[in-house]
Amino acid sequence: MRNIKLTIEYNGTNFSGWQRQKRRSYTIQQVIEETLQKMLHQEIKLIASGRTDSGVHAKAQTANFKTASHIPLERLQEGLNALLPKDIAVIGIAEASGDFHSRYCAKSKAYRYTILNRTHRSALLKDSAYFCRYPLDLKLMQNEADSILGKHDFSAFKASGKEGKNPVKTVKKLKVSRKGDLVYVDIEADGFLYNMVRNIAGTLIDIGRGKLGSGSLKKILDSKDRRKAGHTAPACGLCLLKVKY
Amino acid sequence: MRNIKLTIEYNGTNFSGWQRQKRRSYTIQQVIEETLQKMLHQEIKLIASGRTDSGVHAKAQTANFKTASHIPLERLQEGLNALLPKDIAVIGIAEASGDFHSRYCAKSKAYRYTILNRTHRSALLKDSAYFCRYPLDLKLMQNEADSILGKHDFSAFKASGKEGKNPVKTVKKLKVSRKGDLVYVDIEADGFLYNMVRNIAGTLIDIGRGKLGSGSLKKILDSKDRRKAGHTAPACGLCLLKVKY
Repeated sequence: MRNIKLTIEYNGTNFSGWQRQKRRSYTIQQVIEETLQKMLHQEIKLIASGRTDSGVHAKAQTANFKTASHIPLERLQEGLNALLPKDIAVIGIAEASGDFHSRYCAKSKAYRYTILNRTHRSALLKDSAYFCRYPLDLKLMQNEADSILGKHDFSAFKASGKEGKNPVKTVKKLKVSRKGDLVYVDIEADGFLYNMVRNIAGTLIDIGRGKLGSGSLKKILDSKDRRKAGHTAPACGLCLLKVKY
Repeated sequence: MRNIKLTIEYNGTNFSGWQRQKRRSYTIQQVIEETLQKMLHQEIKLIASGRTDSGVHAKAQTANFKTASHIPLERLQEGLNALLPKDIAVIGIAEASGDFHSRYCAKSKAYRYTILNRTHRSALLKDSAYFCRYPLDLKLMQNEADSILGKHDFSAFKASGKEGKNPVKTVKKLKVSRKGDLVYVDIEADGFLYNMVRNIAGTLIDIGRGKLGSGSLKKILDSKDRRKAGHTAPACGLCLLKVKY
């Protein structure tokens, strides 16, 4: 059996997230699995590095699947890009070793949260940035960000009601930067809890605009209590940039 | 009467272009006029720097209208951005002199045509770049571009069947550049014929990929014959960047 690794870009606006679901049927995983099934005439189980939520984008999600088909990689990629909807594109394809698993083998994932920080919204960025009209103090945000770097229990930043996953993660990078009207929150970690990036980004925004005081982020982290954190920043600003192996 | 000048950003994907039409009703002009009418309780005639086609975007279109209303500019902008659909945003507003006319007073307009030049398409750029899989020779494209700079009769690059407008325009800038996988064709002129940018961009692409030989662009220009030009590049790659007064 071949083990094929896909690198996938998607605009998540019109999807109910990555993961195949019983009720809501238009998910990215389902659309790609069905397209692969049509091309390869076999049932396909696509394993991603992790799910992304409804409305979240990816510049380079990774997913793999097994197949007995002998189809050349280039033809498979071209076929997928011809058949998939325009908001999903296969931007890379490779033969992986038999034991490669997109989720278990991932060493870290990098996300970018994009904020449009000016007095008026943007039409061209409507689905790819969160509009925040309040001036953001980036120095303050970076100071706070630095205080939660490293290995911690991130329970305070996980979605309420989601249990079971090990809440201890290592945040390797958490950088806040500005380019013109855009503010970027770049975060890299060995793993993420459900909604963790959006909860950290939302809390950092609350800090940057003065709704939460200095020292808040570390205090919230230490509390391990979701109710203490700031708001969950909307999905449209979030993009999975890269999965490292 | 006040004369109010708006700077408008839009994602043209879902509109039948700028100009109000009798049959197809969802145009940018119509949507903004109707929103202004709702806010100001008077009939509004919005004058733009020029129309843009269905699917063409604008980073900064200019339009003006007259009103007797005393509404403060800031409140008008905020109201418009609250009421307009997400793919239209008012990014600037100003009081203009009584004789200001968005079209007649425009000195020049700058457009950017964006080409995604790599082997596979992009999901995130699906509505904002034209995908061209063939390698483009930028040096060749720039040489050709240089040959049509200045004041000429641009009849060869106007849409077939559109008559009446003075075909003599002055192209002040025509620059081809690359940034990663993206190739930009930047063009500035004192005016444009219908489809002129898309016809020049399409011809430059045909030259860059070797379908048309060196010297073609000038030869086509001199022919004044639309049938000689290359293909019309699709609307999605085109964006009105700026109107200069």
